[in-house]
Amino acid sequence: MPSIDATRAPRIAVDAMGGDFGPRIVVPAAVEAAREGIAVALVGDEDHINRELADLNTAGLDITVVHASQVVEMDDKPADALRRKKDSSIQVACHLVKKGDADGVVSAGNSGASVACGMFILGRIKGVLRPALAGILPTEKNPVVLIDVGANVDSKPQHLAQFGLMADVFARYVLEMKDPSVGILSIGEEEGKGNAAVREAFDLLRESDLRFIGNVEGRDIFTGEVDIVVCDGFVGNVALKLSEGLAHSLSHILKDELKSSWLSKLGTLLSFRAFKRFKKVVDYAEYGGAPLLGLKDIVIVAHGKSNELAIINCIRMAATSVRNNANGHLVEGLAAHADLTGKPDKTAA
Amino acid sequence: MPSIDATRAPRIAVDAMGGDFGPRIVVPAAVEAAREGIAVALVGDEDHINRELADLNTAGLDITVVHASQVVEMDDKPADALRRKKDSSIQVACHLVKKGDADGVVSAGNSGASVACGMFILGRIKGVLRPALAGILPTEKNPVVLIDVGANVDSKPQHLAQFGLMADVFARYVLEMKDPSVGILSIGEEEGKGNAAVREAFDLLRESDLRFIGNVEGRDIFTGEVDIVVCDGFVGNVALKLSEGLAHSLSHILKDELKSSWLSKLGTLLSFRAFKRFKKVVDYAEYGGAPLLGLKDIVIVAHGKSNELAIINCIRMAATSVRNNANGHLVEGLAAHADLTGKPDKTAA
Repeated sequence: MPSIDATRAPRIAVDAMGGDFGPRIVVPAAVEAAREGIAVALVGDEDHINRELADLNTAGLDITVVHASQVVEMDDKPADALRRKKDSSIQVACHLVKKGDADGVVSAGNSGASVACGMFILGRIKGVLRPALAGILPTEKNPVVLIDVGANVDSKPQHLAQFGLMADVFARYVLEMKDPSVGILSIGEEEGKGNAAVREAFDLLRESDLRFIGNVEGRDIFTGEVDIVVCDGFVGNVALKLSEGLAHSLSHILKDELKSSWLSKLGTLLSFRAFKRFKKVVDYAEYGGAPLLGLKDIVIVAHGKSNELAIINCIRMAATSVRNNANGHLVEGLAAHADLTGKPDKTAA
Repeated sequence: MPSIDATRAPRIAVDAMGGDFGPRIVVPAAVEAAREGIAVALVGDEDHINRELADLNTAGLDITVVHASQVVEMDDKPADALRRKKDSSIQVACHLVKKGDADGVVSAGNSGASVACGMFILGRIKGVLRPALAGILPTEKNPVVLIDVGANVDSKPQHLAQFGLMADVFARYVLEMKDPSVGILSIGEEEGKGNAAVREAFDLLRESDLRFIGNVEGRDIFTGEVDIVVCDGFVGNVALKLSEGLAHSLSHILKDELKSSWLSKLGTLLSFRAFKRFKKVVDYAEYGGAPLLGLKDIVIVAHGKSNELAIINCIRMAATSVRNNANGHLVEGLAAHADLTGKPDKTAA
């Protein structure tokens, strides 16, 4: 982990080629973040990035362009991306951080590849069993951190319990929550409900000094009554995508019906506030991306469909993580929770 | 399995004490179903049931009342309900079916207890590895059968594959779908994505003659593009409850905003059709309950919050299952799919 010089702005390496819209969305987002005082390294096809930059006012901003000749496609397998695309924008971005030329990475590209590059190029913090993706879901109250949303499957009890610890540190030092509550996702509220891994993780979390509130159910995720929800990455990924799909369907119905009404303009006016609240609940762009927690450096995995605001928010989140020394606090947290650390397994970096 | 006399109306044993509202909702629902030509046995506290019946016109309807002195409470553990409440309405209802005095059971009571009573009193069909709860989710297109939604956790690959077969038979003979498609819930569309059990179940399903379309993701559940989605009961239960919770939050926002508007009446008018479509997508009452597939007799587990319509729909579903000989077709299906049957494990009834 490079030490952070608190006197200079954090520099975030941004994968300019990532996401469904590539440089057209990512470059303006990075420029906007730079206007807020974040130093940005745009990584990808130099000509393409410079063409996008030419249209924007970048005078006085701390923006560098770092060329990468390859792009990881959305359907590339992570292992192939890692082995065969050494000069891809995501790999080059990770290496910038590894060399100490940047403090964190943001990518909206192939998320499996981003996770794999983060894990293998940057490596995990000592004591971390499994890095995990933390999805940040907006609700009408506080955001909820759902961990893991897809970096791991078939998680063991100790992995699950440690996800809770990593999310606790993230919630405190990046989301700036006070004393976040931690629940474990299960299929009944009472202790003893769930599958084998969840039942064992329940015991580990209860014995920890995290503010563990026990089992929570699917219906509790969006109430905003719990701050952190721990689950295996298979379950979390299904939950995340199901929420997106359902919210999308329901928003679509609402828009469709109000548009088709003969009083459409009035209807739109009337429903403006409902939409705004709807959007607050379902809009991934508000938080933008999922931090990959447990790595030696900051990696934020943005949604492939990220719009400009989502990318800006990811860059902000990366910068806040660096400024607030989230990883330093995680190292302290791991040291204070030997019970949730165990022995790093054979695949540990 | 009692043989079904096609010339007489199916008789459904209805747990009158089940659900958040008990006899007040269940009795009128049963009377309504009886008006449609379904014979009904109302099981529970005789006095209470008769009081409810006294207010209703039951002339000429085939309704019997069967007394049960105990009630399984929502917080009773299934094993305790089974062992200690031998005269509970759900156990008496199951025994009616076992004796051949009724053809199927509907209960909105403690669903764990209903599953346990169904499994242990009625037993599973030979060749069924694990009975499974099939959630039926309305979408804007066809309903989707999500199996399992909570009867099993830590399902093995062969269990998952057989869930697909059981749901296929149910979809054909009860929902009357033609050639339903089967997907397996995973965290990526491509083959090879998922956890260990899902990857193996993928191979089993691909080799079967079900119309297997491969992996589907959380976002695909509500599109109506796939008819049957196979998953472990832990994942399915989380998905079901998450959908309910999210739909509830979003409906609440919509109602709340439109009510608070100074043009509230007009707003309500405008949004009436949107609500109607919303409701169609998210309303469990449309299908009412989850059949517990794989038992020797028909058991429908209704939602605890079931309203009258939901209970009526459950009784209809039970009657249709009996009339269309769904279990006979499942026996045939199991015989034709030895590959998905394997050896019943030690706990088989």
